[in-house]
Amino acid sequence: MIPIISIIGYKKSGKTRLIEGLVPELKKRGYSVGTIKHTCHELKPEDVDRKGTDTYQHQICGAETIVLSSSNKIMMVKELKSSLSIDEIRKRYLGGLDFILTEGYKFDDKPKIEVFRHEVAKEEKLLSSQEKDNLVAVVSDRKFDIGLPCFGLDEYSKIADFLEKEFIAQKQVTKIELIVDQKKIPLNGFVDGVLKKTILAMISSLRGVPESPLEIEIKISGAYPN
Amino acid sequence: MIPIISIIGYKKSGKTRLIEGLVPELKKRGYSVGTIKHTCHELKPEDVDRKGTDTYQHQICGAETIVLSSSNKIMMVKELKSSLSIDEIRKRYLGGLDFILTEGYKFDDKPKIEVFRHEVAKEEKLLSSQEKDNLVAVVSDRKFDIGLPCFGLDEYSKIADFLEKEFIAQKQVTKIELIVDQKKIPLNGFVDGVLKKTILAMISSLRGVPESPLEIEIKISGAYPN
Repeated sequence: MIPIISIIGYKKSGKTRLIEGLVPELKKRGYSVGTIKHTCHELKPEDVDRKGTDTYQHQICGAETIVLSSSNKIMMVKELKSSLSIDEIRKRYLGGLDFILTEGYKFDDKPKIEVFRHEVAKEEKLLSSQEKDNLVAVVSDRKFDIGLPCFGLDEYSKIADFLEKEFIAQKQVTKIELIVDQKKIPLNGFVDGVLKKTILAMISSLRGVPESPLEIEIKISGAYPN
Repeated sequence: MIPIISIIGYKKSGKTRLIEGLVPELKKRGYSVGTIKHTCHELKPEDVDRKGTDTYQHQICGAETIVLSSSNKIMMVKELKSSLSIDEIRKRYLGGLDFILTEGYKFDDKPKIEVFRHEVAKEEKLLSSQEKDNLVAVVSDRKFDIGLPCFGLDEYSKIADFLEKEFIAQKQVTKIELIVDQKKIPLNGFVDGVLKKTILAMISSLRGVPESPLEIEIKISGAYPN
């Protein structure tokens, strides 16, 4: 599952600036990065497209999903009945990346880095706490002695080191092994695909199975069913 | 599979205007509609977002996918190595709709409606042909006697009647029936789900199976395999 870190902080604390610093630093290390920005206000067509474009007109006339497609980028705007969770957004739109940074989402359960700038803080107190909000580090122009890593406002390289070490695992590749009567059965590409997809689909219907399981073991033993 | 009709025509012939007329007409009839606009030129960040917004900055700094999420809309911009086909766009981004209109995509194989306005046409000749381009109707300020329906430029209601009749089927619900030894076996929700998902997953790996098959029949007969 692609790791997600939420960048939170008081208004004007420098959340976007931190993302602007971290994304190139992570890209330099070979990772592909996605971002999610959460906004509390309702979006109007002009918030997500330029007035007068064809896609803006498509929004205005009531299309529920609008896609603008070209050779180098694709843009999509979709009407929602209610906000999607970060997990839903990751699943639907952010496949194939190595790392996701979100801006906002204080109330989600993802690990968080708080940006704290003395100048704009309402009080000399962090917005979030380690236990309640899953805070994992602080980025600030002052020092917080709270038992968590504390980085300077523009220490992007050190922050990237921290993210890389703590959250970016090696890319997972789904592998399947079939062992029958203690012998490994070789699987060609077709059978490999059918078996993997079948088992993943079957267990996805079972209560208690996470969305992206890491390891699946199935053991069948005893007499052949009749 | 969600039906797709491409609206094509010479530049300035009124493709966007036709979409602006058709979408509300289809929505009035209870359908949810999506649109895809195809553009030949490469998109810059300012083509898909407003300068200075946080998400614009996320694009500028190199994030490969950017999502802006709110309670009423979600916007996504994603970098691509090459254009996606209409079928890929439908599969990835346009689920849950009843109908898709595209603007452009002359060179795809989807059924097409050509908008032809005398004033802007380069010659008194349609851009597309019934055989080569899968043309299914013409919308124009003149009459074309080519054996296809020909509608006036603002006959949105008649065009919607045509689309409804020809392309919008009743919503498909995947159903499964299990008949064993000529008796229908009742399936509870869990078993129903596991069986459907398993079979769909298994056959999806087989060459020659379409992306969204309409009917699947599996017959197993003879002695129990040993």
